[in-house]
Amino acid sequence: MQAKTPGESRTIMTDLVLPSETNPLNNLFGGELLARMDRAASIAARRHSRRIVVTASVNHVAFNRAVPLGSVVTVEAAVSRAFKSSMEVFIDVWIEDRESGSRTKANEAIYTFVAVDETGRPIEVPPLKPESDIEKLRFDAALRRKQLSLVLAGKMKPNDATELKALFV
Amino acid sequence: MQAKTPGESRTIMTDLVLPSETNPLNNLFGGELLARMDRAASIAARRHSRRIVVTASVNHVAFNRAVPLGSVVTVEAAVSRAFKSSMEVFIDVWIEDRESGSRTKANEAIYTFVAVDETGRPIEVPPLKPESDIEKLRFDAALRRKQLSLVLAGKMKPNDATELKALFV
Amino acid sequence: MQAKTPGESRTIMTDLVLPSETNPLNNLFGGELLARMDRAASIAARRHSRRIVVTASVNHVAFNRAVPLGSVVTVEAAVSRAFKSSMEVFIDVWIEDRESGSRTKANEAIYTFVAVDETGRPIEVPPLKPESDIEKLRFDAALRRKQLSLVLAGKMKPNDATELKALFV
Amino acid sequence: MQAKTPGESRTIMTDLVLPSETNPLNNLFGGELLARMDRAASIAARRHSRRIVVTASVNHVAFNRAVPLGSVVTVEAAVSRAFKSSMEVFIDVWIEDRESGSRTKANEAIYTFVAVDETGRPIEVPPLKPESDIEKLRFDAALRRKQLSLVLAGKMKPNDATELKALFV
Amino acid sequence: MQAKTPGESRTIMTDLVLPSETNPLNNLFGGELLARMDRAASIAARRHSRRIVVTASVNHVAFNRAVPLGSVVTVEAAVSRAFKSSMEVFIDVWIEDRESGSRTKANEAIYTFVAVDETGRPIEVPPLKPESDIEKLRFDAALRRKQLSLVLAGKMKPNDATELKALFV
Amino acid sequence: MQAKTPGESRTIMTDLVLPSETNPLNNLFGGELLARMDRAASIAARRHSRRIVVTASVNHVAFNRAVPLGSVVTVEAAVSRAFKSSMEVFIDVWIEDRESGSRTKANEAIYTFVAVDETGRPIEVPPLKPESDIEKLRFDAALRRKQLSLVLAGKMKPNDATELKALFV
Repeated sequence: MQAKTPGESRTIMTDLVLPSETNPLNNLFGGELLARMDRAASIAARRHSRRIVVTASVNHVAFNRAVPLGSVVTVEAAVSRAFKSSMEVFIDVWIEDRESGSRTKANEAIYTFVAVDETGRPIEVPPLKPESDIEKLRFDAALRRKQLSLVLAGKMKPNDATELKALFV
Repeated sequence: MQAKTPGESRTIMTDLVLPSETNPLNNLFGGELLARMDRAASIAARRHSRRIVVTASVNHVAFNRAVPLGSVVTVEAAVSRAFKSSMEVFIDVWIEDRESGSRTKANEAIYTFVAVDETGRPIEVPPLKPESDIEKLRFDAALRRKQLSLVLAGKMKPNDATELKALFV
Repeated sequence: MQAKTPGESRTIMTDLVLPSETNPLNNLFGGELLARMDRAASIAARRHSRRIVVTASVNHVAFNRAVPLGSVVTVEAAVSRAFKSSMEVFIDVWIEDRESGSRTKANEAIYTFVAVDETGRPIEVPPLKPESDIEKLRFDAALRRKQLSLVLAGKMKPNDATELKALFV
Repeated sequence: MQAKTPGESRTIMTDLVLPSETNPLNNLFGGELLARMDRAASIAARRHSRRIVVTASVNHVAFNRAVPLGSVVTVEAAVSRAFKSSMEVFIDVWIEDRESGSRTKANEAIYTFVAVDETGRPIEVPPLKPESDIEKLRFDAALRRKQLSLVLAGKMKPNDATELKALFV
Repeated sequence: MQAKTPGESRTIMTDLVLPSETNPLNNLFGGELLARMDRAASIAARRHSRRIVVTASVNHVAFNRAVPLGSVVTVEAAVSRAFKSSMEVFIDVWIEDRESGSRTKANEAIYTFVAVDETGRPIEVPPLKPESDIEKLRFDAALRRKQLSLVLAGKMKPNDATELKALFV
Repeated sequence: MQAKTPGESRTIMTDLVLPSETNPLNNLFGGELLARMDRAASIAARRHSRRIVVTASVNHVAFNRAVPLGSVVTVEAAVSRAFKSSMEVFIDVWIEDRESGSRTKANEAIYTFVAVDETGRPIEVPPLKPESDIEKLRFDAALRRKQLSLVLAGKMKPNDATELKALFV
């Protein structure tokens, strides 16, 4: 299969924060943002694989900034690395100030999807070819994250996670 | 006020068609698409004006193609002309085929928004400066549409709608 | 097929404006009203045709009055003219004041629906026989609107739109 | 206060059964119908009292007929009797067959609402003056239902519920 | 079939009151609570019968306490008596105070469900064996409620409702 | 502040998978499950702290099993460790088979919440005192996860993450 670039799967979802999505402080519920990011990321994974895709895992997500009611939120997702049938998708979340028009980074998240056939069985996906510097950084880090994921799931011994281990020793 | 280009207000909203949004033929309800376009167009008007904006009118919208459940739909909105406190927003709707990845135009629509202050009173907005050929075409047609709108609302006599009348005589 | 009157398709949908449907000024989102009107109008078209119906187009809609959170909104829809397989539906929107009980016209809109069979193919519908004066006025205007629609879609030359042209010359 | 007729509060809510409201047999969830009836009945109580109203109780509701996905459902609500600050609202639910156009009674329900001021305290409402035979029947039965309600809540001794007791002895 | 205890069907649904579920006084809509209770009670009936279940009726429900926006609401449902193919489910609703952590009873309701096969036909369910004192009280009262239900539906003569009649004479 | 046990914050949210929450394979959307877990976990954090709480981060979540439409899903959340103003919440997700009644573990997730005052500023919370063996295991692991979180956010040097480092060397 021919490799694809992150640009080919990039997905932009700009939408308002609606009143039904807010918590008692009038900010977007964390859970709602997780659901939006899941939809955007699944479209990116689908654009890369041209297959049905299902969410396999969510990496560590930090909610650094509250997102107030009425905000314009842009969720940008693109495949950051492809493995055999799974794809890591990197998601950047921006909010913009209505008066100044300036954009602020509100969140970053990483989801993993698996491409499946109509019966739900995993199926091969094209490799990813990063182009820009940030795309290359994210591509390299993806391997460490995959190892961390396997270690946390008890499917890889910490000692075999060579890329990850290098961080600590 | 300094003029802005359509590119400065362009808003992209890519999302899935969810099961709760479909009619008995398993296609997106017309009304749901109208609501999505309204949200995307209101963000474009807000980006142009940096004000609170409210929907003033919807021009003729034709639903040429059904949008099936599970489709990836992209709504693209950009301001096509600005008047004193109102902005015409042009919206293009695309669906993409999961297997081939090809994009097809599903709809076009034109909404008008008014910028208001916190008390709901109309407030001035920057002019629009079209750049590409299609942006210029849409900019010119906007005046005819405004006249048509005024004629239909009984606020302008057909004979005074010089741009519009030129179409018929 | 036997003609039907507008009364036979008249559909009344009275409901509250819920918190999840409001914009930052605490008024009903334009897009939500468009979706409600689509549902009411589709029921009217279905009552006239006794068929599955799909939205074909939305005519010019002007939002003249804001509809505040908590309002009681009544959407009234009735078929205003039937063509071969399409039906024009006229929609009136009223809001009522809780304290005085008085009703105010908030909006008017015109949607067009097509009757289809189970495979989605257009199918013939009964003609409409207007009765009251306002039903007759709306019936006559429907032909001009249909011509305008065809002209705007580039499917009819302005010069052939005889009913419409008469407005301007 | 001047008495009002049931016709003055009659509320008609016609809407589709949407996919998001159905159970595993593809019929409308009982709970969704209870929520729709609550909204329609609250509008009727509000039209009678011109006050903010809150649901006080729901009488026995029997779900005699399943309401399938895609049905057109009409909920009709009207105040059937007014007490000091409470109003009994009678609700009839109809579904109509798309092909024959015939209407079938699907449900009946009785809700009670209390009129309150802005701080939530009960406030007096106008009496109800029934006109038609069925309105009179419902008006009379309302007193027995109120007694039953008080007995079930332990606020009236069965022996004092003279209207209700008459049914059994 | 082997009898089951209420504990085997007990269902706990703790959730927040979200902004989209509130009325103009910022309390949970009665209709939303009715829908939540229906979902919890249907799970209890399903746990008892291990069948598809549909709502048959709702007994008298009194809304004694308003449930404010942002509250934590716990709906607890358990089968209180089983008949041939129907099950009475008793529902207790609690709200808890964020600061003190104390729980207050907000509502009680009784729903009846029928177990059905895949074609919607009623099917037999196991008997219920109450254990605690309150479970026994609710079990006994269920028969009176069933008689009341049949009397109100005109399917039993008041004089034959021996359990119920005993209350009044 | 007096320590609390996990049992004091344990939150059980049992609910159905509704049609509006499913993906094209008719299984629960990953994003919807993330949102449900966020609501349940936020209630647990609130019960522990008796404060307003906001989502701070989501740890690695693996979606091991698809959750089909119509399933009964139980989300169980309890605080697993408390730090100064933050709380780690451990979430277990179970689905149960309607016919056999057996429960299967579908997912596990870990969210972190911060307690805040009315102005959104972090505020101290009680310590957690684990009781059962599994509660103690989760309590101990929480410190390693906190270090991992700080390392990934660039707020702690890998060499200082002593608990975490011990895993690899």
